[in-house]
Amino acid sequence: MYGLIGKFTAKAGTRDDLAKILLEGIGGMPGCLSYVVAVDPADDNILWITEVWENKESHEASLGLPAVQDAIKRGRPLIDGMEMIATTNPVGGYGLMAS
Amino acid sequence: MYGLIGKFTAKAGTRDDLAKILLEGIGGMPGCLSYVVAVDPADDNILWITEVWENKESHEASLGLPAVQDAIKRGRPLIDGMEMIATTNPVGGYGLMAS
Repeated sequence: MYGLIGKFTAKAGTRDDLAKILLEGIGGMPGCLSYVVAVDPADDNILWITEVWENKESHEASLGLPAVQDAIKRGRPLIDGMEMIATTNPVGGYGLMAS
Repeated sequence: MYGLIGKFTAKAGTRDDLAKILLEGIGGMPGCLSYVVAVDPADDNILWITEVWENKESHEASLGLPAVQDAIKRGRPLIDGMEMIATTNPVGGYGLMAS
């Protein structure tokens, strides 16, 4: 499996809109096993995104899906910064969906 | 919802054992919506744990469960360090199980 832990900084006042856009984009992504969008209770501009994919290729392929392309297009103007905290190899857990 | 993103450092050579112990402890935890254990491909000693709970209270209550107590007891000797990268408030996503 392939995992991502990312920290997004939204432009002031836009975090909720950005979270909504990200959540709208994640339906029906082949190979996606988990995708969680969270707000940071200590910083009004921070979003945490944690993802699990079957493999790196399925994540990369998702970036070309129309719904994801649309989310990127709408979300990008709201993003001030993106920091990849870690790429990982999940080995198991609870809440990993069948692809 | 309540989320945790943690980075564990295992003692050299024990990471796989620690991951196994953590995964054995997570069955049937009330209020747990997601719990993923991942290895860091860039560092042989690092584990990433990402969790989503109904609320902070359900996470705290889990620490008293016999299976979790047992995992803590067996896992603690293998742990060199734990860093809480973030506590979060997940707002939605894919792979969040019914509690």
